[in-house]
Amino acid sequence: MQMHPNKDTRLCMSLSARPGNFGLRFHNHLYEQLGLNFYYKAFASDDLPGAVAGIRALRIRGCGVSMPFKEACIALVDELDPSAAAIQSINTIVNTDGHLKAYNTDYIAVAQLLQTHEVPKDSTFALRGSGGMAKAVASALRDGGYKNGLIVARNEQAGQALAQSLGYEWQAELGTRRPQMLINVTPIGMTGGPEADQLAFDADVIEKAQTVFDVVAIPSETPLIVRARAEGKRVITGLEVVAIQALEQFVLYTGARPTQEQFQKAVEFARS
Amino acid sequence: MQMHPNKDTRLCMSLSARPGNFGLRFHNHLYEQLGLNFYYKAFASDDLPGAVAGIRALRIRGCGVSMPFKEACIALVDELDPSAAAIQSINTIVNTDGHLKAYNTDYIAVAQLLQTHEVPKDSTFALRGSGGMAKAVASALRDGGYKNGLIVARNEQAGQALAQSLGYEWQAELGTRRPQMLINVTPIGMTGGPEADQLAFDADVIEKAQTVFDVVAIPSETPLIVRARAEGKRVITGLEVVAIQALEQFVLYTGARPTQEQFQKAVEFARS
Repeated sequence: MQMHPNKDTRLCMSLSARPGNFGLRFHNHLYEQLGLNFYYKAFASDDLPGAVAGIRALRIRGCGVSMPFKEACIALVDELDPSAAAIQSINTIVNTDGHLKAYNTDYIAVAQLLQTHEVPKDSTFALRGSGGMAKAVASALRDGGYKNGLIVARNEQAGQALAQSLGYEWQAELGTRRPQMLINVTPIGMTGGPEADQLAFDADVIEKAQTVFDVVAIPSETPLIVRARAEGKRVITGLEVVAIQALEQFVLYTGARPTQEQFQKAVEFARS
Repeated sequence: MQMHPNKDTRLCMSLSARPGNFGLRFHNHLYEQLGLNFYYKAFASDDLPGAVAGIRALRIRGCGVSMPFKEACIALVDELDPSAAAIQSINTIVNTDGHLKAYNTDYIAVAQLLQTHEVPKDSTFALRGSGGMAKAVASALRDGGYKNGLIVARNEQAGQALAQSLGYEWQAELGTRRPQMLINVTPIGMTGGPEADQLAFDADVIEKAQTVFDVVAIPSETPLIVRARAEGKRVITGLEVVAIQALEQFVLYTGARPTQEQFQKAVEFARS
């Protein structure tokens, strides 16, 4: 069912320095499939306070927040959901009659994926990275009951701070450790990056792991994921994170939850 | 040609206390017909500064401004086109790389209609009304060279101020005058108003006129227009004003001018 826009059409949006197409295609496709009178627009901006003033003044229902606004946005909203408060980083704003509540659906997505992929809670893990997304992933692990973790980050200050805040160890390199779960939250393996063709973990480390989780979504089949699949490991991809975090935004904005089939079709459409 | 929304889609919008459907249907229909990657959204707001901050921050290309924002908006833009400067009232903002220039396409539409309907410039006229739209219409008449004008308004202060600013006479009532052009810029004849079934000018006044111009657009066939048509007068309707002002907004926002046929079809679609 395709709706013609009318005066009651509600707007949702994303805010980033350089917008992509995935989110707007995902949301608009599902609005159409579910017959919801919404429209999703991706905005580029370099003026966060002005953009948030616009969200309030124009009664925009929801906003996905990307780099570089995820932390600066905290001071501009009215309430933090626990998903955002836990990591002091937001990626979603829901506007209910002028009250802005912020969420982090990356955190929500990672927590869900650890459950749906049935990753044993006693798994030892190594997480590479120390940026904003690493904080979301590591916090979801900690809150999910994964206690035996190592943060691997060359940036000693950020790596140690992240590890200490969550009760994990930190090392600059993996060294001789062979954890049961490997998690990449660096740009290694990402299209267009300087390390696009590299493995985020060494081959012998992958061989000894049971679960491999790569947050890189472009491509979702990174060298790390390709290798892990070939060896029959439990695999969680960045595309799953991107898709589920978008799905949870959709549910927060509209109150409607698509079927699994509608969700999968929306992901396929959004990637095409 | 229907476009799927993508990250390059440009947004235009309207801002009013209570949005209608005409503008958004008119603009979105023409975007589709002309294959332009734009989307038009009608916003309700009670926060004008926040809304204008949003237009800047979100790089919204154009904004139609309705009651009650047409005058307060002047202080928030960067430049006034002569059409807006002449009457100190704006109904259109064009955002070019963060520079906001304001126009009044009501004024532009009225000036065009006086020309295309070939209303003789030496026509005497009476204009009923003294609000913001009356200012736009009377200014277009003055700038079009119509010198023999009478402002008829029960509000003495507003009526006299408008008349004096443009070099016209003012009277509270028409009295014994029988002008060649009658212009209604009051809500008389408007659907839902207390005077919906009334004539804005008396029957014998209409009989002696050559041209009848009613700014009321809902319905466009007001009692005044119906009577004037029956008597074979030259008629200009509020629908023409609404449609042409929207067309001029469209041209300002997109740089593209539809054909006459595309324009007429867009008006029909927007009204349906």
